[in-house]
Amino acid sequence: MKNQIDKPRCNCGVIGVFGHPEASLISYYGLHALQHRGQEAAGILSLENVKPKPHFNIHKGIGLVSEVFSDSNLFTNELNGSSAIGHNRYSTTGASDSRKNIQPFHVNYRLGNLAIAHNGNLTNAKSLRDKLVDDGAIFQTTSDTEVVLHLIARSRQSDQIEQIKEAISQVEGAYSFVILTDDKLIAARDPLGIRPLCIGKLNGSYIITSETCALDINSALYLREVAPGEIVVIDQNTLNTKEIKSFQLVEKTPKDVRKHCVFEFIYFSRPDSQIFGTNVDKMRRKLGKTLALAHPARDKDNEKVIVISVPDSSNTTAIGYQAGLQKLGINSKLEIGLIRSHYIGRTFIAPTQKNREIGVKIKFNIVKGVLENKTIVVVDDSIVRGTTSKQLIKLLREANPKEIHLRISSPMITHPCFYGMDFPSKEELIANRFNSNVEEIRNYLEVDSLEYLTVEEMLQSMTDHKKDDFCTACFSGDYPISIDEYFKKNQYED
Amino acid sequence: MKNQIDKPRCNCGVIGVFGHPEASLISYYGLHALQHRGQEAAGILSLENVKPKPHFNIHKGIGLVSEVFSDSNLFTNELNGSSAIGHNRYSTTGASDSRKNIQPFHVNYRLGNLAIAHNGNLTNAKSLRDKLVDDGAIFQTTSDTEVVLHLIARSRQSDQIEQIKEAISQVEGAYSFVILTDDKLIAARDPLGIRPLCIGKLNGSYIITSETCALDINSALYLREVAPGEIVVIDQNTLNTKEIKSFQLVEKTPKDVRKHCVFEFIYFSRPDSQIFGTNVDKMRRKLGKTLALAHPARDKDNEKVIVISVPDSSNTTAIGYQAGLQKLGINSKLEIGLIRSHYIGRTFIAPTQKNREIGVKIKFNIVKGVLENKTIVVVDDSIVRGTTSKQLIKLLREANPKEIHLRISSPMITHPCFYGMDFPSKEELIANRFNSNVEEIRNYLEVDSLEYLTVEEMLQSMTDHKKDDFCTACFSGDYPISIDEYFKKNQYED
Amino acid sequence: MKNQIDKPRCNCGVIGVFGHPEASLISYYGLHALQHRGQEAAGILSLENVKPKPHFNIHKGIGLVSEVFSDSNLFTNELNGSSAIGHNRYSTTGASDSRKNIQPFHVNYRLGNLAIAHNGNLTNAKSLRDKLVDDGAIFQTTSDTEVVLHLIARSRQSDQIEQIKEAISQVEGAYSFVILTDDKLIAARDPLGIRPLCIGKLNGSYIITSETCALDINSALYLREVAPGEIVVIDQNTLNTKEIKSFQLVEKTPKDVRKHCVFEFIYFSRPDSQIFGTNVDKMRRKLGKTLALAHPARDKDNEKVIVISVPDSSNTTAIGYQAGLQKLGINSKLEIGLIRSHYIGRTFIAPTQKNREIGVKIKFNIVKGVLENKTIVVVDDSIVRGTTSKQLIKLLREANPKEIHLRISSPMITHPCFYGMDFPSKEELIANRFNSNVEEIRNYLEVDSLEYLTVEEMLQSMTDHKKDDFCTACFSGDYPISIDEYFKKNQYED
Amino acid sequence: MKNQIDKPRCNCGVIGVFGHPEASLISYYGLHALQHRGQEAAGILSLENVKPKPHFNIHKGIGLVSEVFSDSNLFTNELNGSSAIGHNRYSTTGASDSRKNIQPFHVNYRLGNLAIAHNGNLTNAKSLRDKLVDDGAIFQTTSDTEVVLHLIARSRQSDQIEQIKEAISQVEGAYSFVILTDDKLIAARDPLGIRPLCIGKLNGSYIITSETCALDINSALYLREVAPGEIVVIDQNTLNTKEIKSFQLVEKTPKDVRKHCVFEFIYFSRPDSQIFGTNVDKMRRKLGKTLALAHPARDKDNEKVIVISVPDSSNTTAIGYQAGLQKLGINSKLEIGLIRSHYIGRTFIAPTQKNREIGVKIKFNIVKGVLENKTIVVVDDSIVRGTTSKQLIKLLREANPKEIHLRISSPMITHPCFYGMDFPSKEELIANRFNSNVEEIRNYLEVDSLEYLTVEEMLQSMTDHKKDDFCTACFSGDYPISIDEYFKKNQYED
Repeated sequence: MKNQIDKPRCNCGVIGVFGHPEASLISYYGLHALQHRGQEAAGILSLENVKPKPHFNIHKGIGLVSEVFSDSNLFTNELNGSSAIGHNRYSTTGASDSRKNIQPFHVNYRLGNLAIAHNGNLTNAKSLRDKLVDDGAIFQTTSDTEVVLHLIARSRQSDQIEQIKEAISQVEGAYSFVILTDDKLIAARDPLGIRPLCIGKLNGSYIITSETCALDINSALYLREVAPGEIVVIDQNTLNTKEIKSFQLVEKTPKDVRKHCVFEFIYFSRPDSQIFGTNVDKMRRKLGKTLALAHPARDKDNEKVIVISVPDSSNTTAIGYQAGLQKLGINSKLEIGLIRSHYIGRTFIAPTQKNREIGVKIKFNIVKGVLENKTIVVVDDSIVRGTTSKQLIKLLREANPKEIHLRISSPMITHPCFYGMDFPSKEELIANRFNSNVEEIRNYLEVDSLEYLTVEEMLQSMTDHKKDDFCTACFSGDYPISIDEYFKKNQYED
Repeated sequence: MKNQIDKPRCNCGVIGVFGHPEASLISYYGLHALQHRGQEAAGILSLENVKPKPHFNIHKGIGLVSEVFSDSNLFTNELNGSSAIGHNRYSTTGASDSRKNIQPFHVNYRLGNLAIAHNGNLTNAKSLRDKLVDDGAIFQTTSDTEVVLHLIARSRQSDQIEQIKEAISQVEGAYSFVILTDDKLIAARDPLGIRPLCIGKLNGSYIITSETCALDINSALYLREVAPGEIVVIDQNTLNTKEIKSFQLVEKTPKDVRKHCVFEFIYFSRPDSQIFGTNVDKMRRKLGKTLALAHPARDKDNEKVIVISVPDSSNTTAIGYQAGLQKLGINSKLEIGLIRSHYIGRTFIAPTQKNREIGVKIKFNIVKGVLENKTIVVVDDSIVRGTTSKQLIKLLREANPKEIHLRISSPMITHPCFYGMDFPSKEELIANRFNSNVEEIRNYLEVDSLEYLTVEEMLQSMTDHKKDDFCTACFSGDYPISIDEYFKKNQYED
Repeated sequence: MKNQIDKPRCNCGVIGVFGHPEASLISYYGLHALQHRGQEAAGILSLENVKPKPHFNIHKGIGLVSEVFSDSNLFTNELNGSSAIGHNRYSTTGASDSRKNIQPFHVNYRLGNLAIAHNGNLTNAKSLRDKLVDDGAIFQTTSDTEVVLHLIARSRQSDQIEQIKEAISQVEGAYSFVILTDDKLIAARDPLGIRPLCIGKLNGSYIITSETCALDINSALYLREVAPGEIVVIDQNTLNTKEIKSFQLVEKTPKDVRKHCVFEFIYFSRPDSQIFGTNVDKMRRKLGKTLALAHPARDKDNEKVIVISVPDSSNTTAIGYQAGLQKLGINSKLEIGLIRSHYIGRTFIAPTQKNREIGVKIKFNIVKGVLENKTIVVVDDSIVRGTTSKQLIKLLREANPKEIHLRISSPMITHPCFYGMDFPSKEELIANRFNSNVEEIRNYLEVDSLEYLTVEEMLQSMTDHKKDDFCTACFSGDYPISIDEYFKKNQYED
Repeated sequence: MKNQIDKPRCNCGVIGVFGHPEASLISYYGLHALQHRGQEAAGILSLENVKPKPHFNIHKGIGLVSEVFSDSNLFTNELNGSSAIGHNRYSTTGASDSRKNIQPFHVNYRLGNLAIAHNGNLTNAKSLRDKLVDDGAIFQTTSDTEVVLHLIARSRQSDQIEQIKEAISQVEGAYSFVILTDDKLIAARDPLGIRPLCIGKLNGSYIITSETCALDINSALYLREVAPGEIVVIDQNTLNTKEIKSFQLVEKTPKDVRKHCVFEFIYFSRPDSQIFGTNVDKMRRKLGKTLALAHPARDKDNEKVIVISVPDSSNTTAIGYQAGLQKLGINSKLEIGLIRSHYIGRTFIAPTQKNREIGVKIKFNIVKGVLENKTIVVVDDSIVRGTTSKQLIKLLREANPKEIHLRISSPMITHPCFYGMDFPSKEELIANRFNSNVEEIRNYLEVDSLEYLTVEEMLQSMTDHKKDDFCTACFSGDYPISIDEYFKKNQYED
């Protein structure tokens, strides 16, 4: 039952902890909070300061964080140490060696141990890899992330930080790295700040992670974002002086150009997180309100309109939408019209040919009483293939509603993402199947009306930001970073 | 991380299917829909009509339905057959032989195969068991349900239906049974109708199950409830004639006396189910509205009151509560103030001594933006020990709200349930710890105000029913069926 | 790779320990020593004297003893207690509930806990079971052993020992039982003494087990056999007074009639064990010597004859055979001509259609140097189907020996055993396929000569015993105990 | 229960198959035959000729070959391909990443896929590795074998065979390699021929493996040894022309100098194998005979001496010893005095403190009847620590023999092996604990007499070879290849 919901998929969540006796346990709770960013594999690596040499402990596996780490002994014995990094991810198509691609990756090289976890996608990985292989490098995985390890190991710089800076300055694309060495936690973020990355503090220790929800669960204090193009270094000196060392990558784009992934606000990040300096929840409510103001839904007899979300991801957006309708003076009410089951799990048995109609019912059931004879507006954050939407609408029809209106809080998705978001092929996108013709899509989905946010409306909703602070490539095909030809055809895993 | 949420626990969900080539798969989907009724173990048993004698296939295990049955081959090979019964349950305290207590139970006796699944609790199980043991019966489990099998096997009646009637007429308490024999599916419900049980139809086949959501997932048609005190028999003749045989147990209480478990409406059943003839969702919204009208929450400066639920169980109730406030003209808004993680699972690692404060954060996080400086009213359906509530309130305080008001859509729980609901000991109930003194509980929970529904208010909300159609024993100590002395001290498992 | 060697299979080994703080660990080592008696499943049950009532702990599983019990914590925690019984067995054909048939069985009945382990086969189990089922008894397994538990539970005697005596007096066939109650270890052996059972002492504690090798491994002292038809009781009083209570079953056959299974000497028991009062090793050497004297093998050119065994079971017999040749003045030498692999295990992958010739090579390889151009006599203890023998001879031919002579230290097997030995069907026995015609069998196996011991010669070898002390049913069809008609067709499991 | 027997441990067995549709299944059977060379881990890698690029399939695991590969689907699906290499080994001390060290190793490098399996030990691995790491190489394992992969990947040669030759010419020590590329199977053996390696043929396909028993099990034909210092290449051309390409390494020692490991004859190899051109069985019988002639055992009253082996490894040697006694006219008989259990397995539960005396009894039991009142001579192939020997002698004393004489068919082990044999530390060797004083060792072991073969006597027994064809370093400290200083202290894994 993989990818049973028709949504774009974020690639990963990362966390790093430095200077805490329960570093790996903090990583565990953090990865649990980041579970929505990658549900198919997870790993934690801790640094144990044993004699004669520091030692890396590691535990990885396929499944939810709570499945991969099911034994608390892990944290007191197997994953001992006062620093740790962790990662969760979507695993790749049944590749027999997919286990190898579970991060963090770690190696032992000239200057000691080195481990890395990565959220994003390196767009020049293929050409860098080719060059390294040509030079006798032996790769263990098919992941773009491994390139970084080889670049560091082969750097002729004598200082480790310099090696890392040299290596990172060679990669392009979207990246939020956490790197652990024998005595330092290093984090780096690409110059355009495509994926989020932030710094927190827990008593005297430091945490670097994708979203603030991983700080909250640990009762840690939010300090600041890792700035786009910034490399930060946390070491024993940081613990003593509270001073985080910071370096700036030589940017290849003009300063202050930002290209945050707007889908982090629309769908990926948790509503209780703060990313790119803004509460996700606030932004999502704003998107819903804009959607209502620009694309309201009305009952033809002026009766009350029932606003329902597709739980859980569009719950907040639906609240915003209903507030928008209210502002327009449209009689409306927010209701729970769909109940979602949270017990599915990886091993759920898919419908057989014979009973395919069960499809969406495994995940959702309708609350007939609130839908019968009503005009309903369903608020959802995005449509990818349209398969789930179609089934959901059919399911809602079983309650005999008067009319069903569908409102989407993002524009039509028409182009692939090369910066860490996972889509089906261009051909499978519903927008492309119907040449971006909304009426045809409406007809296909069998709703009474269908409206998307336009790119312009969407960007207007991003109140704390400039309009061009966001990457809109998946809606517009406007890619802010050039892509290897090879990569366009054979996307690397991350 | 067992029982991590401080709620009463329903014991079980049951399903029976007769006359469908994918009987066990239908049971699987049904048990998935009933997952909320029992999350720690599940089993399905199918009847295969092989020569020379019909054969029972069975598969049981510990975990969620999707974990116990993870191989679709199961249903085509291992669980073949056109009839099946299924059960899910809360397993018991780490008893080494708890596996044995997973239902369905099955035996081979004089008249062939016999299997049973049970939701409820038999209050005279101990005395019946003692008599049977005295008579040389050998018990395999510690479950009260096994008593029924022995009563059937020892019945001197020659007709199987008569045997079953004789056996069931000897047991007392709350029961919704599904029983499978070599050629019949039988269901029975106790005379007071304490637990729900309903009949549905799927093409030519029949389904009997605890809640209608198990029919909906299979796109089956709801026919009717199994009436209190009714025994229904479905066999080949039913398939041919569409006629369900029905028998009435000799009732020990006056006719038309009903004692439905009111907690099925308050918390146990799924909001999209219909039980006792009424939509749960409707009843839950009614409870919320009554709660608001009787116990509104106001902002002292007449600013907007933010209504939030404790997701997901009180979501509908919170909608009703906000509607109630609106009716009273109180400026209010429904918001999502708590985000709940659904990734916990059985193997989640519990907080250690050192980081105990993480407790409730594993399950919930606050959405600071909607709570800060606001007067909040938190709507919850029940409080048992009060431990989670106290932690939740503390967590909400981190958002710096103006005030926090707590409203509970059920009365104070003060007495144990002997009819299939699982509680902590009487001493642990928060109501008893504070002598039912609301002010003391409020003080302990550190909320600005706290209100419960009274028993009277609760019963007034049960619109489609007479007030005395419900059992209120856990609030009042008023037990409609007498309890074995032994049983009061040593509750049997079910 | 089940039953990969073509030998009769003994059904089980049993052990009971009373009065030792490490009772279950002693059972474990004992079952390890008895591993040859049953390699597919094992179980240990211990009695823990906890308040308020004694408690049985149990652990069972499929596989070798060392696989089923792989955690030493088992013995200190899970299998605590100062008394225990254990059992190992061959499991049955892939019956889906074969797990249920793993012994020891245990129940809770009127007088407390009761557990049993059984080596043998009850020949009137079917009629007893029918009567019990008719009386409302519910059976959990398909094993004949469970009948005994029901007979005990239903006995109207008030004293437990009397109940057990009454129950055992009703069963017929071959049995060596160990029974554990809340305060006693009881053992019983059938009146004809078909299977072995002996008593040992370890410091102050007592051990009852199938073969003395289970005493030896625990450094326990051999006391005596449990006599045919005897019931012994060991309890706290025995620990205090060193006195073992003993009862005699009413025998249905004249006193002093013994019908020991001669195959225990020929093949089943370990050569280092003492059973029926005699060292197995001594008896096996005697069989070999008799075989040589009656059926010598000679080289046609009077060159040295190479005597080889089929390891490991006929190693001792081969020594006896070579000694016999020497006595006859035949120039001969014992050699190792076959190397046997001991790494096979349950999960070994069987040859595919394409490479079927690998068959016997997985288990045996030849030592070419000792066989080339020599006259070889292969000594084996028995032939069942003849399949392995045929393959082995073919393998030996690869070494280019001059001649191959095959000598079998038992008569031709022609009849099924109903007393605890497992055979293929009558039709599959090589003797029956060739109408007991030795010349035809020789021809089929492609050996230069083939000789079996006659029944008479075999019984002459049993020096410490009377000739008619042995059951010879599998050679002669002469069954000392009558068999249920039903049983003849549908052998019960044990 | 690791290493429960006090013997030197051989490190590994290897196999390679080229040109057979069931290449991995043949490897499986071969590794099964080589199980004695490494019982703790195994792996098979197959080459599948898929488009667009050939693909390596691999399956590795901890345990016996039959445990690691327990699903026959493996071979038809997962390990498809017409070429394969396999390896079994002793895993290392509980290193958390020991799984990584299971061979075969494989990488993808400039010229395609590359896999290797290795038996032996590279004595200059540390200095080669240091140089590679310094150059930016990233190592995945702690095994010396990985060095070879890096040397190949970094070779500037354009031809793959040249790369491999260049790489191998840089390593020193003992090695029998099998290497698989996208189109070739390559094997190489060190110039001194320390470990065995041979070539066989199965129909049109080729097999290269450690011992001939891995050919026999597959009914393959033995062709010849891979010569010391030889590199052989088998590719499609070989299949067509039957011609095996062969290259000679530049030897660093004079030609024709051989230093075979004498322990391969004494203990490691299977008696049915042929290695270094000679049948192991023949050599082992010769060692036993020499031992008897030089160090006979006699009964003081001229009664019969009972010769027993410590099964199974010294069975053949004991036959030779008895033949030697016979030649000397000493009245003697070969008997089975010890029965060995083969059911131990990896998970066997070790004796606790309380019952430590059980020690050797888990593995061996005595056959009292043949030992009582007799003069016994126990023939064993080697003593390492002496712990098992001491326990065995104590066990034998329980049979009340008249006298016990111990004869060892190898000299005293006094020095570590750096060429692929695994020993305890120098200090633990019994010879060193007693300063090579035989009388003191005899006294410690409590035998009536003790004799070892001298180095001279041992070498005289090696009839088909020159005396100085063997490495005797572990007896004499005379190392034929110089050892890295580092290596002497920190032996690398293999």
